Amino acid sequence: MMALEIKGQAIPNIPWQDRPQGCDHVMWRYSANPVIPRDLLPTSNSIFNSAVVPYGRDGWEFAGVFRVDDTNRRMRIHPGFSHDGINWHIDESDVVLTGADPEIAAWEYGYDPRVAHIDDRYWVTWCNGYHGPTIGVAWTEDFRTFHQLENAFLPYNRNGVLFPRKINGRYAMLSRPSDTGHTAFGDIFYSESPDMEFWGHHRHVMAPARFEESAWQCMKIGAGPVPIETSEGWLLLYHGVLRSCNGYVYAFGSALLDLDRPWEVIARSAPYLISPREIYELTGDVPNVTFPCAALVDAPTGRMAVYYGCADTVTGMAFAKVDELVDWIRRNSIV
Amino acid sequence: MMALEIKGQAIPNIPWQDRPQGCDHVMWRYSANPVIPRDLLPTSNSIFNSAVVPYGRDGWEFAGVFRVDDTNRRMRIHPGFSHDGINWHIDESDVVLTGADPEIAAWEYGYDPRVAHIDDRYWVTWCNGYHGPTIGVAWTEDFRTFHQLENAFLPYNRNGVLFPRKINGRYAMLSRPSDTGHTAFGDIFYSESPDMEFWGHHRHVMAPARFEESAWQCMKIGAGPVPIETSEGWLLLYHGVLRSCNGYVYAFGSALLDLDRPWEVIARSAPYLISPREIYELTGDVPNVTFPCAALVDAPTGRMAVYYGCADTVTGMAFAKVDELVDWIRRNSIV
Amino acid sequence: MMALEIKGQAIPNIPWQDRPQGCDHVMWRYSANPVIPRDLLPTSNSIFNSAVVPYGRDGWEFAGVFRVDDTNRRMRIHPGFSHDGINWHIDESDVVLTGADPEIAAWEYGYDPRVAHIDDRYWVTWCNGYHGPTIGVAWTEDFRTFHQLENAFLPYNRNGVLFPRKINGRYAMLSRPSDTGHTAFGDIFYSESPDMEFWGHHRHVMAPARFEESAWQCMKIGAGPVPIETSEGWLLLYHGVLRSCNGYVYAFGSALLDLDRPWEVIARSAPYLISPREIYELTGDVPNVTFPCAALVDAPTGRMAVYYGCADTVTGMAFAKVDELVDWIRRNSIV
Amino acid sequence: MMALEIKGQAIPNIPWQDRPQGCDHVMWRYSANPVIPRDLLPTSNSIFNSAVVPYGRDGWEFAGVFRVDDTNRRMRIHPGFSHDGINWHIDESDVVLTGADPEIAAWEYGYDPRVAHIDDRYWVTWCNGYHGPTIGVAWTEDFRTFHQLENAFLPYNRNGVLFPRKINGRYAMLSRPSDTGHTAFGDIFYSESPDMEFWGHHRHVMAPARFEESAWQCMKIGAGPVPIETSEGWLLLYHGVLRSCNGYVYAFGSALLDLDRPWEVIARSAPYLISPREIYELTGDVPNVTFPCAALVDAPTGRMAVYYGCADTVTGMAFAKVDELVDWIRRNSIV
Amino acid sequence: MMALEIKGQAIPNIPWQDRPQGCDHVMWRYSANPVIPRDLLPTSNSIFNSAVVPYGRDGWEFAGVFRVDDTNRRMRIHPGFSHDGINWHIDESDVVLTGADPEIAAWEYGYDPRVAHIDDRYWVTWCNGYHGPTIGVAWTEDFRTFHQLENAFLPYNRNGVLFPRKINGRYAMLSRPSDTGHTAFGDIFYSESPDMEFWGHHRHVMAPARFEESAWQCMKIGAGPVPIETSEGWLLLYHGVLRSCNGYVYAFGSALLDLDRPWEVIARSAPYLISPREIYELTGDVPNVTFPCAALVDAPTGRMAVYYGCADTVTGMAFAKVDELVDWIRRNSIV
Amino acid sequence: MMALEIKGQAIPNIPWQDRPQGCDHVMWRYSANPVIPRDLLPTSNSIFNSAVVPYGRDGWEFAGVFRVDDTNRRMRIHPGFSHDGINWHIDESDVVLTGADPEIAAWEYGYDPRVAHIDDRYWVTWCNGYHGPTIGVAWTEDFRTFHQLENAFLPYNRNGVLFPRKINGRYAMLSRPSDTGHTAFGDIFYSESPDMEFWGHHRHVMAPARFEESAWQCMKIGAGPVPIETSEGWLLLYHGVLRSCNGYVYAFGSALLDLDRPWEVIARSAPYLISPREIYELTGDVPNVTFPCAALVDAPTGRMAVYYGCADTVTGMAFAKVDELVDWIRRNSIV
Repeated sequence: MMALEIKGQAIPNIPWQDRPQGCDHVMWRYSANPVIPRDLLPTSNSIFNSAVVPYGRDGWEFAGVFRVDDTNRRMRIHPGFSHDGINWHIDESDVVLTGADPEIAAWEYGYDPRVAHIDDRYWVTWCNGYHGPTIGVAWTEDFRTFHQLENAFLPYNRNGVLFPRKINGRYAMLSRPSDTGHTAFGDIFYSESPDMEFWGHHRHVMAPARFEESAWQCMKIGAGPVPIETSEGWLLLYHGVLRSCNGYVYAFGSALLDLDRPWEVIARSAPYLISPREIYELTGDVPNVTFPCAALVDAPTGRMAVYYGCADTVTGMAFAKVDELVDWIRRNSIV
Repeated sequence: MMALEIKGQAIPNIPWQDRPQGCDHVMWRYSANPVIPRDLLPTSNSIFNSAVVPYGRDGWEFAGVFRVDDTNRRMRIHPGFSHDGINWHIDESDVVLTGADPEIAAWEYGYDPRVAHIDDRYWVTWCNGYHGPTIGVAWTEDFRTFHQLENAFLPYNRNGVLFPRKINGRYAMLSRPSDTGHTAFGDIFYSESPDMEFWGHHRHVMAPARFEESAWQCMKIGAGPVPIETSEGWLLLYHGVLRSCNGYVYAFGSALLDLDRPWEVIARSAPYLISPREIYELTGDVPNVTFPCAALVDAPTGRMAVYYGCADTVTGMAFAKVDELVDWIRRNSIV
Repeated sequence: MMALEIKGQAIPNIPWQDRPQGCDHVMWRYSANPVIPRDLLPTSNSIFNSAVVPYGRDGWEFAGVFRVDDTNRRMRIHPGFSHDGINWHIDESDVVLTGADPEIAAWEYGYDPRVAHIDDRYWVTWCNGYHGPTIGVAWTEDFRTFHQLENAFLPYNRNGVLFPRKINGRYAMLSRPSDTGHTAFGDIFYSESPDMEFWGHHRHVMAPARFEESAWQCMKIGAGPVPIETSEGWLLLYHGVLRSCNGYVYAFGSALLDLDRPWEVIARSAPYLISPREIYELTGDVPNVTFPCAALVDAPTGRMAVYYGCADTVTGMAFAKVDELVDWIRRNSIV
Repeated sequence: MMALEIKGQAIPNIPWQDRPQGCDHVMWRYSANPVIPRDLLPTSNSIFNSAVVPYGRDGWEFAGVFRVDDTNRRMRIHPGFSHDGINWHIDESDVVLTGADPEIAAWEYGYDPRVAHIDDRYWVTWCNGYHGPTIGVAWTEDFRTFHQLENAFLPYNRNGVLFPRKINGRYAMLSRPSDTGHTAFGDIFYSESPDMEFWGHHRHVMAPARFEESAWQCMKIGAGPVPIETSEGWLLLYHGVLRSCNGYVYAFGSALLDLDRPWEVIARSAPYLISPREIYELTGDVPNVTFPCAALVDAPTGRMAVYYGCADTVTGMAFAKVDELVDWIRRNSIV
Repeated sequence: MMALEIKGQAIPNIPWQDRPQGCDHVMWRYSANPVIPRDLLPTSNSIFNSAVVPYGRDGWEFAGVFRVDDTNRRMRIHPGFSHDGINWHIDESDVVLTGADPEIAAWEYGYDPRVAHIDDRYWVTWCNGYHGPTIGVAWTEDFRTFHQLENAFLPYNRNGVLFPRKINGRYAMLSRPSDTGHTAFGDIFYSESPDMEFWGHHRHVMAPARFEESAWQCMKIGAGPVPIETSEGWLLLYHGVLRSCNGYVYAFGSALLDLDRPWEVIARSAPYLISPREIYELTGDVPNVTFPCAALVDAPTGRMAVYYGCADTVTGMAFAKVDELVDWIRRNSIV
Repeated sequence: MMALEIKGQAIPNIPWQDRPQGCDHVMWRYSANPVIPRDLLPTSNSIFNSAVVPYGRDGWEFAGVFRVDDTNRRMRIHPGFSHDGINWHIDESDVVLTGADPEIAAWEYGYDPRVAHIDDRYWVTWCNGYHGPTIGVAWTEDFRTFHQLENAFLPYNRNGVLFPRKINGRYAMLSRPSDTGHTAFGDIFYSESPDMEFWGHHRHVMAPARFEESAWQCMKIGAGPVPIETSEGWLLLYHGVLRSCNGYVYAFGSALLDLDRPWEVIARSAPYLISPREIYELTGDVPNVTFPCAALVDAPTGRMAVYYGCADTVTGMAFAKVDELVDWIRRNSIV
């Protein structure tokens, strides 16, 4: 095992559960999953694909933005807060965005948010409905007021994920260009911006894997949580999709990206980390989905808590040790 | 809350269960669902999408027609009887139809029946296989002898639902024109007949909703139980379908139609009433289906018991108060 | 050759051209095809799939209703008149319909008309856009004022073709139930009405043929001109469609239907009569289409002039002798 | 009940469980299903669609070849051994094939194996990835060394199943020609070989059934376990597929084939034997799959133990009596 | 007729042909079309969808970049020159791009170029293969050396068209986000860049029209030539697509965009200007395509010469007067 | 230019036309194409995709088998004879096959034949309808009596093409496994048989090319005429297909295969030889098809005459010199 350095803050109160007896997998589920039930709010149909960060303010330890679909099945993003990262208080009202050009502000839906803490701001990116899905961008300091910027890209795009710091002097984002529907393809691309307003220098990062080599990620892939900086490279969790005769199966795995040229893949895991196996992952509004959107890491210990959507219905958690995970990626890499 | 008048008979012995503690939904499931298991009959594969009426005769309190698929997966309709509306005695033999032109009588399958009590007859409509699915029509007085008439419409049609009385002097039916397969579209239309033999004066009633507004009903919709007459309009329960990457999800909601011009929609609920959530709704021959075909209403009290198919496999029940429901539709209307 | 009796009027001035030297086909094209060019009107994109009748009035010998798509590619129906059945004067304005319920009258498009002369009225049926394609119905006496009735059927339907007299005391119509798009299936059905207002007694007439037996009509079929009454049965021209890897090919053939039970097919031709072969049939807005919508027959002589749309762009004519054609159907029948 | 003779060996220690009280089905599930969990091996994602035979050697009573998908979702075949046919010791390494031309040996995947004991060899056939799925062939005597021959057929083929003896002097195999993906069609064919090297004399055996007659097998069918020889004919278990709006449902039934001309079907069951009903069949990597690949039969008693894949995830067992089953097929035949 | 001012240069030698006698269309074809045959180069399969500009240098009057597919059917861009705008000398070698990051420079294909003259440079944009189609950008001064910049957008995008000057201080581009194949949808969007390197401020401009209103543009639309600045707004020619049962039909029309907020549509023509009608438009590698990529305008006289690809095979020309065209758009607008 | 040796007979009277002035293509069309019109027979709809050989007997110089579709659009094979290889006498009756097992003999259709002269027999292979398309096999000595053998392969297969001599002691055939419809994939495989009865030793020969490299052959490919033996390898003409938004385009090119291991490709041309360009190739029952099925070669001079189907409607010819062609393949190879 290498001596891995993790860049990031200490989160001594990170939600955590040790690896179960007899389990030899590099990642394991929280035993009390799901942590957020579908009907936590009076009119929620489902709560999943959500993002959280440490947040020491207003008496809360953690804050986040949550995908909450209501019983109209409208997709919205709600703020939420927690003392322990496991029990969440989610606002009944969805996020209110301010400051954007009215035309942009008049979005039609928002879903699958991520949060990146860059300098003093929490930057939220999400799938934003503007004549099709694209990447919405906003920042907040208090998870009460969200300042919306221009959409980063043209439609059709999903899974926009910011890096937690500038790279080579520019903001950096991963995303997955898509189509207007249940996209049957999907590569991960990298883009840069001097100002969070104009984007360019687009680079291809990863394509789906060969079916014969790693089938769970052979149809499409998309970035998950904000990448984690380590001395070995950016640790990226990403979902992959396999299409069976009975629909898509969403699992997730991990990769290491070059620190300075993140479009260069150092290692990429052939096996998945988590694939639908529990009843709350196998059944729900979209069966057979495990979809990570956030990961907390306690830098000193390397403990990692992953939040992932289950069956597009509820939210689950899984745990790993970053150093073990990085080692595992290298040992199981298809690069 | 308005003073709502419900036109209909008293059913003091209506199957009923009060709203559970802590539940604030306008409709709630029966705690002992499913009420009809898939293998109630020796050769039944599934029993669902069925219709019942009060029936004070031969010692029974309720009667109905039931969709029973056998282990050939052939779709048939069986008569059934009950003392309490919950425990059902379903005939092992399917309905025998008499009186029709032999060519029409030689149908290939029958499914998803509804029953309307008009004057002294119980009128059964169902999806009838005559060179494609269309709307079969028959009447019975005793649920033993069923007199078949001509099919109401040309193929391809499903979900034909009669109003419980003539409107403007004519019989009236809702239906959903379809195609030959797993139809990916579907509006509700209204038609009239002077004689249950020839049909015309077709009017468009409702299209699927906009995805951004009410996604559970954005792909296709179809009438459910026989409409319930109230002083506020016809109360219609109807199913709606959303297509995920893993298939269709059938939920159901409700609308109010004008009493004299039922093709005019007064109000229509944006949220669903019931969407697949329980394991018997999430899994089965067709996962993620809740599909209502009948509703009993005790007019004096407004108690309503809905029968709905679950996962195209078993039959469940749900309850509501008609006045609360009408009020809820108005408060949540997208019209 | 049998002694065939044709029920119908004498049209001594029927447009006609004798069978060319060396041609031994039962039907042959007019040598000066197309008879109506696509840009006959200043804003017409195409003129095709149109219907004509003898019309001895106002100095004209023939009248008709014409599908005219404008350069918006909107589908409209225009009246037209002719002295010889070949050179046509088509109104620049499309048909104005009167008398219908405003909701029905607010149609979105009209195309592929047919005209049947029943008693003293010319009855026009067409594909009428009312929340999808269905069969519009109107009558005229002068091809100036068109009185619209209710649509005959629920959507989705195309190719509604009236018989030229009541059968068993009722109006009778053939049609082809369809779906919302480029329907990939299609059988011909028969329906009856006591009053042109309500329709029922639907019967299946013909399905597509087996690919191995008669491939040009193996995907879908639809009635063409108003059937021609003969002592051998109703002579029906109908189109059939074959799907190649490069799209649909529309050809047409013929059948004999029982006089009293027209849903019973007496004979049906395995070979086509006309299939796309000329450059004006092979190329145009929809390549490879020959689509008949009208046929004039001079009863005493049996001369028949067929009008058919070519490549959904222009109008062509073809000729046959009815007695030869009936004989040919019987000799080449797949029934 | 006829006096049925079963050709085959005695397996007195066949895994067995009597028909449950109150059950009147001809086949019943093992009460402790699934017998093989998905994660029996450290890196297995799933273990299913596997084949076993009696094997009195090395201290084992049974041996077999098992489809094991790893957490890359790669499809591999592993040897396994058992004392009781229920608890299995499966090798962590997949089968190593020897002896084939290097080009053939360089296969890309292997799945859904069957094993036939012919004379002194165990012949394994499986779906073998050679520029598409085709039928791989190998023999073993010890389930340690597998001698690979040429692929039997051109791609694209699946479900190759050998008969347990030569017929008319030649090896005989059933298979299901397919396409490159989630094939939406599928008939069972029969082929012969003088030498297990060259194949010919292909005959059509069975097509999918008519939807109206036996819907569970109306889209595609494929042979299951090695056929069982009886005095009434070859007893074949086979899977059938129905496509709902939410995907494929795999059930299985049975047929009797002529002993000398096995492409002639003597009887074929309209009802299914097993269709997905239990949670381990309804949910998993591919929901709603029951897929038999092997059957043990104790010839003297007619007890039969069937191994079938469940939801493409785990392995289950079901039991029947051969004589009852043969009788049931005859009584419920659609031939 | 208004007094329209056209911003642009005088091109007294613009290729031109007066409107034919009897023609009353606002745009008319060149009588000697096609002007560039498919096999002008020894190994060209087709030459079409190309862009030209006035170019007074090296003895040439016009220069351009041409889509040339070779007999491998590889898509490449070649420079070309002309004395009269009609007879073209096209280089046998395709464009060589310099200066870009090697990863970007390693494109896989280039097609459908446009050229905008901004200040002193000719800016070429084209559909550039970089892990999918996106918008390539390069500038040249001499049509010999082309300096490539970063791709403007993420894939998947086509039909990137620059405005001929900065708007509000930024470069401006129209484009049509697409998918990986024969995209069945397509809106026109507008984007801005301070530096031709980073892009943002994306705005929706136009969606396809309603089928009932303007069917030729009801499936997808895309910008054509570089917009022409007039006192009434930006004059945009754009293609629209209708899907028949036999494939796509590409026609083109025109719109007026606001000068300062070009994503606001002032007027948009319901009728098409040119739709496939001539044999060189109806037949070829892709039948039924007319696709404009360039327009020359002589500002003082308003004469306009449009270059358009025909059937993805050859290049044609059409003519119009800008003032008449602007007037016609306003009179036929669906905005 | 190398000194190429061609193995084969002299055909001094081979149909021939010198390369036109100014043409520098390696293959050129016959100036009087098409040589066989679609209606050569009284009931023929089309005559194309046919095969011919030298045949010095009964006063004829050439004989062949011709795909003739009748006006039912049934696909049949007819014998034909010619004095000059250009003007053909085709039998009005289709080929009668004898000698096969009645079940095999009862085929449903036959099309796209090839003829190989091996030793003293003419071996005909074709696409034979036996529960789907597969490869039929028969031999004749006189093109009057055809002796049918077993089908070579299981369905679904097309384009079975024999080599003109045994290779390594076995008969050898190329074929293209397919699906049941308009197959959207297709590789060329090689198979061997000791006896023309049983087939095996299947090898993959060629997959479609990469779109970016040689797009005309990027979707599927299939062998054309019987390969021509040269000192440089087997010269194979083969068709390739590109799918545009308006359907498939069939072009053809050529390759060199190793003489002893013909599944090894020595060279393969990136450019096509012939792609649809003439009106009889661009329009017809299937537009945009050029499909070669036979080639005559005069060994001493290397003159080659290719017969190819045009638009699935008529038959054309093209010419080349074998030595030039082999040289051209090598110079333009993508291997």
